[in-house]
Amino acid sequence: MIESINNERIKKYAKLDQKKYRNLEGMFIVEGEHLVEEARKRGLIIEIFSTVPYEDATLVSEAVMTKLSHLTTPPKILAVVKILDSKEIKGNLLILDGIQDPGNLGTIIRSAVAFGIDTIILSNDTVDLYNTKTIRSSEGMIFNINFIKTDLNSFIDKIKNDYLILTTNVKDGKNIKDISINKPYAIIMGNEGNGVKEALASLSNDTIYIPMSKSCESLNVAIATSIILYELYQNK
Amino acid sequence: MIESINNERIKKYAKLDQKKYRNLEGMFIVEGEHLVEEARKRGLIIEIFSTVPYEDATLVSEAVMTKLSHLTTPPKILAVVKILDSKEIKGNLLILDGIQDPGNLGTIIRSAVAFGIDTIILSNDTVDLYNTKTIRSSEGMIFNINFIKTDLNSFIDKIKNDYLILTTNVKDGKNIKDISINKPYAIIMGNEGNGVKEALASLSNDTIYIPMSKSCESLNVAIATSIILYELYQNK
Repeated sequence: MIESINNERIKKYAKLDQKKYRNLEGMFIVEGEHLVEEARKRGLIIEIFSTVPYEDATLVSEAVMTKLSHLTTPPKILAVVKILDSKEIKGNLLILDGIQDPGNLGTIIRSAVAFGIDTIILSNDTVDLYNTKTIRSSEGMIFNINFIKTDLNSFIDKIKNDYLILTTNVKDGKNIKDISINKPYAIIMGNEGNGVKEALASLSNDTIYIPMSKSCESLNVAIATSIILYELYQNK
Repeated sequence: MIESINNERIKKYAKLDQKKYRNLEGMFIVEGEHLVEEARKRGLIIEIFSTVPYEDATLVSEAVMTKLSHLTTPPKILAVVKILDSKEIKGNLLILDGIQDPGNLGTIIRSAVAFGIDTIILSNDTVDLYNTKTIRSSEGMIFNINFIKTDLNSFIDKIKNDYLILTTNVKDGKNIKDISINKPYAIIMGNEGNGVKEALASLSNDTIYIPMSKSCESLNVAIATSIILYELYQNK
């Protein structure tokens, strides 16, 4: 049992609350039994820590758990896990251009899994995938989808012949219900405040909008993304 | 100019960060010019405070602004406003049964305005409408919709002859695309963890589900609500 927060391993893992150390070590922390077991299914576990006897977990004191946890109410169990490998793309894509809110990113990931997206492409300025809030609001769905973090301009340039590339445009877009899909699609969604960057938007083959009441200017980005993914998923 | 955080009016308004005082005084605080102006349009302003000269605002020091603000970065301008009056219902309804997360509630309000809901009915155990996070994530849309906070069972009993009452049911529900609407509708949506309470669900005329991939168990409640509202809004 590890009782001291000065244990070398604990000190090292406690630093994983910072993005810099997550990238450096190639590890992140997932909290709670559900996420630990999801990570285990994918063979990503480095070490499990628990304040109560739990399978192959290392027993730790409450103080150590509090030190490792990023939550105000620490869980009974958490795990240090390997960051995810990127796989080849092979189906419909969601391209996220600078999403800033970790809760929005997590919610979008959950919806993307629900609506048949194979891979999420994250711009380099998107909020960190391994942020605790992102992981929590994804409800474990980060383990059910492929991620690629890259420069979006060169990525879209590479895929443009094989994909129908769509983005939103409130002024000139087509009603999302009227889009016809005849090949794999890639949806570009933009930042909370500013939308999709102009240079990226100009790379799309077509633009779409979600019809809505004039009383409301815009939807939350996670909502807009989910409605578009939902509609295209039904469209198949 | 008010410079002291011990000013009696400031001390009183600073307590509006607590739900108890908001209810007692019938007031709440909105932060930032956009929300202040939305409140003004509806004639709800009690007093505006600003750290820079601004129309009819009372000038205050940064310290006073920090005392009044609920944000970590206080705005330049905020207002104390009257809580909203409930009006008669007259169109489609959204009934929320025990939503707990203020961000979810705010996002749902924004989508409800976008998709033609006239009134949102809040159960007595729903998170407070005047919570700062709710107001912020609604993007000012709390001023564009009618709210009624009440006991849901007796409310639904009163409207059941005039409304098509729908709720979600993953097992036996109809595909949301296959619902036909021939009168005003009322959608009951449930709590983040537990869904709609059984006693309420049994009062619905029909149940619906959102088709999705088996890889994902469920959607975030704000997402599910928005997709249903979107779909029914297009259905008209």
